[in-house]
Amino acid sequence: MTRESEVLSKLKPNWKLWLESEGEYIFGPGAYFILDHIHKHGTIKSLEEPVKIMSYRYAWGVIRKIEKKLGFKIVETFKGGSSGGGGARITEFGLQLMDLFASVQESFNEATQNHR
Amino acid sequence: MTRESEVLSKLKPNWKLWLESEGEYIFGPGAYFILDHIHKHGTIKSLEEPVKIMSYRYAWGVIRKIEKKLGFKIVETFKGGSSGGGGARITEFGLQLMDLFASVQESFNEATQNHR
Repeated sequence: MTRESEVLSKLKPNWKLWLESEGEYIFGPGAYFILDHIHKHGTIKSLEEPVKIMSYRYAWGVIRKIEKKLGFKIVETFKGGSSGGGGARITEFGLQLMDLFASVQESFNEATQNHR
Repeated sequence: MTRESEVLSKLKPNWKLWLESEGEYIFGPGAYFILDHIHKHGTIKSLEEPVKIMSYRYAWGVIRKIEKKLGFKIVETFKGGSSGGGGARITEFGLQLMDLFASVQESFNEATQNHR
């Protein structure tokens, strides 16, 4: 292996993926992270407690902006439930949005397997 | 087709790809554009003449930075040639770098064909 090919073999692809609609930025990795977090924890509060990952005021801003652009709710809140404290859940539409993003990410991961 | 699936079907993936070495940014679409331009025109001057696309001072800065990080020349200049005015060419190492970037871009294009 030459020194040149050794240097080249150390180069790894990285990327930022997002979804656009008619050229407008709609949904990226930050929004995916927020939705995934809500989906796993059943509440948006866990973004701040016990450890502050980001403010949920900010997270709601991200969510509301996407909802406004697309015209559909992606997160809905509810009262009560088993813990009695209510929570948040991803709507069916939101789940489809997450699936779309995740499936492209996955195909990019696969596409770069032989470059990693 | 429901209104929701219609909205989802309008979403198109877009991305920025770059190459890293041990977490450090090395080579992205801007550098690829510069190298591809030099490769096609045989000179860096065509970045400014007849129409200024970018300053070649800036372009050289981009090239030198990559060369410094990787330890190999990616562009070399020469005097004379058929026109007598000299020119610039991509080194073998530079061409391999371009190929690596282009092949990942191509695989991302293919991976998103069914999402477009």
